[in-house]
Parts: sequence; C-alpha cells; structure tokens
Amino acid sequence: MNEQLLLTNIRSVLIRLEESIIFALIERAQFKQNTVIYDAGAKAIAINGESLVSHLLHETEKVHARLRRYTSPDEHPFFHDLPKPVLSPLYYHENPLHPNTVNLNDKIRLIYEERIMPYLCEPGDDGQYGSSAVSDVNCLQIMTKRIHYGKFVAESKYLEAPDSYQELIKSRDAERIEEAITDKAVEAKVLERVRLKAQHYGQDIEGASTQTKIQPEKVVDVYEKWIIPLTKKVEVQYLLQRL
Amino acid sequence: MNEQLLLTNIRSVLIRLEESIIFALIERAQFKQNTVIYDAGAKAIAINGESLVSHLLHETEKVHARLRRYTSPDEHPFFHDLPKPVLSPLYYHENPLHPNTVNLNDKIRLIYEERIMPYLCEPGDDGQYGSSAVSDVNCLQIMTKRIHYGKFVAESKYLEAPDSYQELIKSRDAERIEEAITDKAVEAKVLERVRLKAQHYGQDIEGASTQTKIQPEKVVDVYEKWIIPLTKKVEVQYLLQRL
Repeated sequence: MNEQLLLTNIRSVLIRLEESIIFALIERAQFKQNTVIYDAGAKAIAINGESLVSHLLHETEKVHARLRRYTSPDEHPFFHDLPKPVLSPLYYHENPLHPNTVNLNDKIRLIYEERIMPYLCEPGDDGQYGSSAVSDVNCLQIMTKRIHYGKFVAESKYLEAPDSYQELIKSRDAERIEEAITDKAVEAKVLERVRLKAQHYGQDIEGASTQTKIQPEKVVDVYEKWIIPLTKKVEVQYLLQRL
Repeated sequence: MNEQLLLTNIRSVLIRLEESIIFALIERAQFKQNTVIYDAGAKAIAINGESLVSHLLHETEKVHARLRRYTSPDEHPFFHDLPKPVLSPLYYHENPLHPNTVNLNDKIRLIYEERIMPYLCEPGDDGQYGSSAVSDVNCLQIMTKRIHYGKFVAESKYLEAPDSYQELIKSRDAERIEEAITDKAVEAKVLERVRLKAQHYGQDIEGASTQTKIQPEKVVDVYEKWIIPLTKKVEVQYLLQRL
C-alpha cells in the first residue's frame, strides 16, 4: 500500500493539522467579527463585487496556484478560475487517490463565514479588517485541507475491505456508506484530544491575562458540528466515485 | 497622549504578538529547512530570478498593498515596488508617530533566512516547499510587525522625557540613546515570559507525541539574539529621526 494511505500516517497528519487549526482559530478569535469584511456589497471595503475576505482568498489562491499548490492531491482551491502553474509540476509521491471531483469548499466557506466565525469571535467591529481577513484565509486553507484529507481516509478504508464497499457503492446507498465509515470510538477520541489541546493552547500564560483567547468547548463544537461531519461527507462522496 | 502610545497598550500588543510569533515559529519548525526555497538560482523552483520564498512574499505583499495594509503605521513592507491601494485609505486612528523612514526589513529577512530558520528547523529536505514558504511569509510578517513596534515604544519613551532625549539626539550619539531606552529588567521579564509560553505552546499534547514541535530555549534565543536587539535598533533609528 502507498505509505500515504497507512492509517498511522493519516492519523499523524490529522493530529498535526489539529494544532494548526486550533492555532488559526485562536488567532482569528483575537479580533471581533467585523462582519463588513464578508459583505460583497460593503461600501469602501468590497472590491469589484467581492467581499474583502473573498478577494483576499481569491488573490491568495491565484498566487499559490502559480506555485502549483493545487496540483497536490491534498490541496483543494476555493476558486475555479485560477491561473496555471508557472513552476513545472512537482513530482509528488504517486497520487494514491482514485480520480475524483469531490470539492466541498463552497459549503466549507459558507459554514465558516456564517456559523464558525460568528461562533468564535465576539460581535462588533474593531477596525482590524486586514488582520481578520488574513486570519480567515489561514483558517479556511487549513480547514479545507483537514476536511478533504477524508479522501485519504476513505481510500484507506476502501482498500481494507474492497468487496463490502463495492457492494455499498453499487447500491448508491450514501447512508449505509456513512455508517460503514463511521467509528464513534475514534470520533470520541478526536474530540477528547481536541478538547485537551484547545484547553492547553487556548490558555492564557502569565502576563497575557488581559486577553481572552478562546473557549475550549467552542473549538470542540467546531470539530463536532462541522469539521467531522464535513470530513465524513468528503469520504462518502469520494467513495461514491470510487469504482 | 494618543492611547496607542500608552505603555500599557503597547505592552498588551507586544504580549499578544509573542503568541503569534511562537505559533508561527512552531508551524514552520514542523518542516525541514528545505534550503532550496531560499535560493534565487534554484532550478525549477525559483521564479524570474527570485527564490520561491521571495516570490511568495513579494506577491503576497502586492495583494496586501492593494488592500492598503502598508498605509497603517504599524505595518512595513519588505518590497518597495508595491501597487497603490485600490481601497480608499482607511481612517486609521491618528498616526501617533513622528514622520520617519525606518525600515529594517532587509536585515530582518536576511537574519530570518540565514540564522533563525536554520536554527529552528531540522536540516534536510522534505519536499514541503509550498507549506514551508507560506509559513516563512507568516513568520516574516509577524516578526517585522513586532520589531517595528519599537517605533511606538520609542515615541512613548520620548514623550516621557523629551528634554533629555532631545539632547542625546542632537549629539547623534546612538550608543547613549540605546543605553537610555534599554531596560534590562523589562528585557529579562520578556524573555522569561517567552520561555514560559514556548514551553507551554510547544508542548506535545496526548496523541501528538510522534511530532517534536520546538525547543523552548530556541524560541528564547530568537528573542534574545535577534528580536529584542532589532527592536532596539528600530527604537534608536526612529529617535535619531525624531527632531
């Protein structure tokens, strides 16, 4: 088996991404919601009909696309009008995934802007538009990576029991596929680890006590309500294209 | 006095930036040095005579410049051929600084690429060029912000004792200005707080034990050898232009 598909390797990638996600959410939560930066019609802050965050994400993806970011099987862009790479294709480890078109980024962005950000950040406007938008792009880029890593998880599970998955896939039964890939014990373990990490990294250290950082329960909720279900959605959609 | 110049406010900005710097350094340290990304002559990875990191930093600054990032008195670009803002100037709080041209970014970048990054990251090449370069840009942007915040520190100190500073400035005596702005007790406190934070945030939490994150002593060294001295250099250069 391709070593990227070994469950121990997938697990260590997902664990490391947890820290990056928690750091990114803590960084964003230091600013207020600043909802004007998500408003494509905001006067003096939207650009060519794009909200500030959308514009920054779009421009950032253009730069990264030229540097061939989206030729990597674990990267998924939010935009689809990106320029071609100016660097010749990197020689990635052989792509271990089955060809597929799964990309949940529209949904991820909507959920991030409408549910996650307002849940984590204090309401109000502190004028820190640029810093908030840079943090948002960082949060979105790291969350899409974690969620679409579900493709590697799904491929690995498929290869462990191809016969039973093939049967489910042929029946197009998304619900039973979801049951098959779900491991409640593993999910509980992830949530418990996220709770510990968020408690730890979100804690104020001597001298920083004037700054509230993040409530650990909220980070756990982000995982439970959105990151884990979206990852499973990626897994199911990937498997439906697996044959 | 402008409230941005109150020492308690400056202190809380600097303390919050410590966390961002430590998070950013931890993120970069998960990848190997990948020295090819700093090499402007690297085949297949440099772009138009710029190293990958330089190119990414440059393009990122172009995007941010259009969003008027560098019209803020606490932001300093690494490049000087940036496009004009497409957003109309934000109405920043009145700029509390004296007009000045201090920008140590060439030095900061050199020190980051040649001293700090090799000190924090394991030697070798893990192929994670894009992720490493994105982390580098993040480290550079947060470090330049912290170091140039020295301007606010210097202005605040100046306003506390304008007469004695004026005398030193007129004599162009950089050494005595540096003595005047130096507070060894405060520096020791910063280093102690950075040590605590790096120990705390750099710690592996249950389940992540296969990943070494960062040695706290190294983060303290980065502050002691480079960040604090460069901040003081900014303060001195700013004061030399203060009259």
